Amino acid sequence: MNFASDNVTGAAPEILAAIAAANEGPAMPYGNDPLTKRLAAAFDALFERTVSAFPVATGSAANSLALACMAPPYGAIYCHPESHINMDECGAPELFTGGAKLVLIPGKAGKIAAADFKAALAGAGKGVVHHVQPAAISLTNETEAGTLYRPAEIAEIAAIAHEHGLFLHLDGARFANAVAALGVSSAELSWRAGVDALSFGATKNGAIGAEAVVFFEPKIAESFGYRRKRGGHLFSKMRFVSAQLEAYLKDGLWLRLARQANAMAKRLADGLAAIPGVELLFPVEANEIFARIPAAAIEGAFKDGYVFYRWQGERDEKCRFVCAFDSKPQDVDGLLASLRRHAQGAARKRA
Amino acid sequence: MNFASDNVTGAAPEILAAIAAANEGPAMPYGNDPLTKRLAAAFDALFERTVSAFPVATGSAANSLALACMAPPYGAIYCHPESHINMDECGAPELFTGGAKLVLIPGKAGKIAAADFKAALAGAGKGVVHHVQPAAISLTNETEAGTLYRPAEIAEIAAIAHEHGLFLHLDGARFANAVAALGVSSAELSWRAGVDALSFGATKNGAIGAEAVVFFEPKIAESFGYRRKRGGHLFSKMRFVSAQLEAYLKDGLWLRLARQANAMAKRLADGLAAIPGVELLFPVEANEIFARIPAAAIEGAFKDGYVFYRWQGERDEKCRFVCAFDSKPQDVDGLLASLRRHAQGAARKRA
Amino acid sequence: MNFASDNVTGAAPEILAAIAAANEGPAMPYGNDPLTKRLAAAFDALFERTVSAFPVATGSAANSLALACMAPPYGAIYCHPESHINMDECGAPELFTGGAKLVLIPGKAGKIAAADFKAALAGAGKGVVHHVQPAAISLTNETEAGTLYRPAEIAEIAAIAHEHGLFLHLDGARFANAVAALGVSSAELSWRAGVDALSFGATKNGAIGAEAVVFFEPKIAESFGYRRKRGGHLFSKMRFVSAQLEAYLKDGLWLRLARQANAMAKRLADGLAAIPGVELLFPVEANEIFARIPAAAIEGAFKDGYVFYRWQGERDEKCRFVCAFDSKPQDVDGLLASLRRHAQGAARKRA
Amino acid sequence: MNFASDNVTGAAPEILAAIAAANEGPAMPYGNDPLTKRLAAAFDALFERTVSAFPVATGSAANSLALACMAPPYGAIYCHPESHINMDECGAPELFTGGAKLVLIPGKAGKIAAADFKAALAGAGKGVVHHVQPAAISLTNETEAGTLYRPAEIAEIAAIAHEHGLFLHLDGARFANAVAALGVSSAELSWRAGVDALSFGATKNGAIGAEAVVFFEPKIAESFGYRRKRGGHLFSKMRFVSAQLEAYLKDGLWLRLARQANAMAKRLADGLAAIPGVELLFPVEANEIFARIPAAAIEGAFKDGYVFYRWQGERDEKCRFVCAFDSKPQDVDGLLASLRRHAQGAARKRA
Repeated sequence: MNFASDNVTGAAPEILAAIAAANEGPAMPYGNDPLTKRLAAAFDALFERTVSAFPVATGSAANSLALACMAPPYGAIYCHPESHINMDECGAPELFTGGAKLVLIPGKAGKIAAADFKAALAGAGKGVVHHVQPAAISLTNETEAGTLYRPAEIAEIAAIAHEHGLFLHLDGARFANAVAALGVSSAELSWRAGVDALSFGATKNGAIGAEAVVFFEPKIAESFGYRRKRGGHLFSKMRFVSAQLEAYLKDGLWLRLARQANAMAKRLADGLAAIPGVELLFPVEANEIFARIPAAAIEGAFKDGYVFYRWQGERDEKCRFVCAFDSKPQDVDGLLASLRRHAQGAARKRA
Repeated sequence: MNFASDNVTGAAPEILAAIAAANEGPAMPYGNDPLTKRLAAAFDALFERTVSAFPVATGSAANSLALACMAPPYGAIYCHPESHINMDECGAPELFTGGAKLVLIPGKAGKIAAADFKAALAGAGKGVVHHVQPAAISLTNETEAGTLYRPAEIAEIAAIAHEHGLFLHLDGARFANAVAALGVSSAELSWRAGVDALSFGATKNGAIGAEAVVFFEPKIAESFGYRRKRGGHLFSKMRFVSAQLEAYLKDGLWLRLARQANAMAKRLADGLAAIPGVELLFPVEANEIFARIPAAAIEGAFKDGYVFYRWQGERDEKCRFVCAFDSKPQDVDGLLASLRRHAQGAARKRA
Repeated sequence: MNFASDNVTGAAPEILAAIAAANEGPAMPYGNDPLTKRLAAAFDALFERTVSAFPVATGSAANSLALACMAPPYGAIYCHPESHINMDECGAPELFTGGAKLVLIPGKAGKIAAADFKAALAGAGKGVVHHVQPAAISLTNETEAGTLYRPAEIAEIAAIAHEHGLFLHLDGARFANAVAALGVSSAELSWRAGVDALSFGATKNGAIGAEAVVFFEPKIAESFGYRRKRGGHLFSKMRFVSAQLEAYLKDGLWLRLARQANAMAKRLADGLAAIPGVELLFPVEANEIFARIPAAAIEGAFKDGYVFYRWQGERDEKCRFVCAFDSKPQDVDGLLASLRRHAQGAARKRA
Repeated sequence: MNFASDNVTGAAPEILAAIAAANEGPAMPYGNDPLTKRLAAAFDALFERTVSAFPVATGSAANSLALACMAPPYGAIYCHPESHINMDECGAPELFTGGAKLVLIPGKAGKIAAADFKAALAGAGKGVVHHVQPAAISLTNETEAGTLYRPAEIAEIAAIAHEHGLFLHLDGARFANAVAALGVSSAELSWRAGVDALSFGATKNGAIGAEAVVFFEPKIAESFGYRRKRGGHLFSKMRFVSAQLEAYLKDGLWLRLARQANAMAKRLADGLAAIPGVELLFPVEANEIFARIPAAAIEGAFKDGYVFYRWQGERDEKCRFVCAFDSKPQDVDGLLASLRRHAQGAARKRA
């Protein structure tokens, strides 16, 4: 069983079915098809207002294209050191922005504290030509540590950003898990809290490759179409991307899928916490779990066929487990049993 | 019926089925799945040698990533003025190369003549720091005029390119149509003729979004993986892109699909040539037809529900018709009947 | 004697003296010195209005930084194929704009015709995401063919540009020669004719390395300071660049220098026209001369120690001669005598 | 008197004289002049081997062009958070590299510790496409904290860099001060210690605008000429930049100037250390001094007309003082007297 990431999953059946259903006769390309137009209305409904939502196929594309609309080449984009845009996109934001700088603000449990952001801005040298100019802040929710920003936390950071003329980007590769876990509306966790642009993820939560960049601030959306095309991210047969998103949103599928992932993560976290020698590293608030596991237990579980990541290289005892929309109780319980058995074996040996 | 482009089509049933079949259990992400590994062997077999083939989802991505591996930011990339990379990608090659320059070499029927390429190189100022440095030439086969380069023509240009230290890129968005029409092997129309990197298209010919960048020259492939990731073009659930390509290649599906498109184009071209007042503008060698059509016939066919492009704006009598893998004889015949009727009506009026 | 270019010259004595005079005690760096502040007023006076003028040290920097303020990365910049920005800057505009595309509009004698610009815009696909978006047009005055745009010609092109939302950039590496030759004011030949940004050259006309980017449209100047710094073009000891420009403008030095260059070019052109077998290729309107010269005369003059360029490689009979602020009648007459003698000798041999 | 920076100075008389002397008749442009060719030999002599030395006019240009030769767009460049390339160039390295990432390694007193560099590389994910790839490390000597790397310290870092396939860049904006202070040769402090490319500064130490990028590793120099031109940093009248560098190197002028700056800094540091309430923040090893000064003394000295920087904003008690080639004992003593007087006054008030 694979807990390495939610991107090891395949697709939800409803989404595969939607792709098949979209395959009916010719359709005008590049998003000029009826399905893509229909999708715009679905996003408006989801966010309870008019938005500009643009489908793309990968999260890196969503993030870096959104940021390119927000920051000039001489801009500074504030983000957490562990953020996906900083760590895991091989410099995609730098490519798409034309060389803007990611300025790192460390913080506990994957989160940026408002005070630290304020301090960073105070020392940024706004208006001084020697320094890159504060342009945007990018938060991730669900964070890379599996924790969550509440609407009020986002709002506090957004207020600072807007006061200083910055835009707020939210990397929502796991936005579904955040919304599902917090029990708030998509509007509350985005624009009502001050988010200007959202990378709305679907791939990790049941699509085969579909995300949407959702702009709540129309002026930053103006260049998006050109940037998406120029980035090679405008699909000619767009309907097949849009179909995934339409099915994802339909009848709350996306939240059902996310709730399953979150519930399995809770089950796993509770189980882990009960294993002697195991320590949860961050509050488990959605579908990712970080835990310190005795090396013997890690290796034992690996031998039993379980897959998950040692977080920083091959001797690290810090591990990440990700539950997904298709995780099953028996898989979680199997993993727990394996870890428990090997942890106990190791403890006995030491004793 | 829609003859606007081969990208108005949906997917071939075999390809949809392959996507569904790929949805079995977890798979390691980012191409580390068994299906993607299997695909590498399929490409080796297709080209009768070891190649480096990288799946991506759009043609613009394939082209611009390939070119970025071939040309430094201060490089010149020679291409036809009508080439897709120059006209229809909103500057994607410039983005991915970091600002290399596309240097245009006009030529008849969408093709670059070897002599003109030679002349361009002679005046390029190689080694002179004031000038962008010749780095690559990009040909398109099937060309944007619906014509074809034969292996010997490519070889002649490749010899010049290699003599001067340039790489040769082939935009093969419609490579299938070219191979099918010429009755040559993929090897003959690519590396045996001197092609260094090929954008191997599948989207227009039955996939929902799948292309491969195929490198025949290993040293230019070295940076590809980083550039693809950085471009946001590395799919986490890569197996669903690879599955399309695998099905596309399996049992010659890709050539069967292309042959159908080509045959329908021939049927349409023959019919058009027989309509008084209609003039074919280029030899119809694969699946694209450019023809001058009387305005009344164009408008009449539009009213009858046929879709195709006036090539350069809304009063142009030059039209493009593209046949695709799913074009049917009755659709072609219907279009011909419509055009014929309206052309005759207009002729009668004038008489 | 060297007629290869006006950049083979040294500095005007007044400008050298100004550099020496600027060397008095400490001054705040990066343009925060009194001399640079004074220079702003001098530019306002020159253009009879408030302008934003930024010193830089090279023409390529001036051009490409100005263009970067005018065109987004997905923009199109229209220019003549022979323009310096297209031919002789190794892709500097592409670097500084982040990959905008130079779209070439050929035209006689180094000039773009308004009708051709209009036609280019008509086919540009404004608002269509597949195409780079018209952003700016760059003219050169004095052109690379040694000809001049009159204010009315610029105004006609500017009107088209502005009607379509484009900015007009003027590469004025030899603006002095143009102003001096036409007998108009700097205002008439720039903003009154619709120029939005001017690369105001001084280097070729007596400075050691000093140009100014002059913005007449304040909103496009906003990002200049950051772009100049980021481009490595903000001098810490700016006063030494500013001093050159101040001396250049003072008491009309710049026009005196340009008039000398122009007068010597006229003397040379008149003399060339009188040599049998020599043909002037373009009207000689300022300080550059293009002429077809018999090969024997070219080689003879080279042997006599004269330096000038065969325009397109080592067998070309098209030559360029550039007169400069320090060209002297005796040098011009010497060159003429040499060419005449060798041309006659060759004619005699043929006879 | 101005201790704000060594770039508030003018030019050394010898350098001004060299500029004037270079103004003799025509010279071929863009570095094809005899003086620039002569300069190459001077750099070879200085470094006791063949080097590739390229004049440019600013330190930001030198640094970012050198780095662009060393790192691909998907590269990581390691540097200190306080380094000029990270803090004070508005993203110039990002522009010239096409978006490479500066990865920060903090360290005491402006220096990177070899162990920290090693740790950074260990976690960098070499060969993993998700991560920017280690390409170069940039050290600054004299550092931004006024401290010095010894040859052995550089060699230790260079060995790690080379072992991992990275290049080592040295920002030598104040290389003269480092060489003068350490009493080593230029070779010992550069290539013999493993430096691959050096930004050899002259501007801060007596030139008006002249630096050289010196490559010790020929293969990384190959693209420099194109990148310099494309960056707008190739001066047409290059002889005037080269003349500055030639004079700078001649008869050890550069070291004489640097020794004066260093000596004055020592005098100032010794004086500061003797003022009650003043604390030196770093060892004063060359020409920069960082000290905590009582606020009243800072403000008093400001009122007395002394200029220096509060390091991080207008209430900071951390101050930077920079001595330069033209600093004089009486100026230093005057500043000390002022600070002492105001510090004592403040102490009395508190008492």
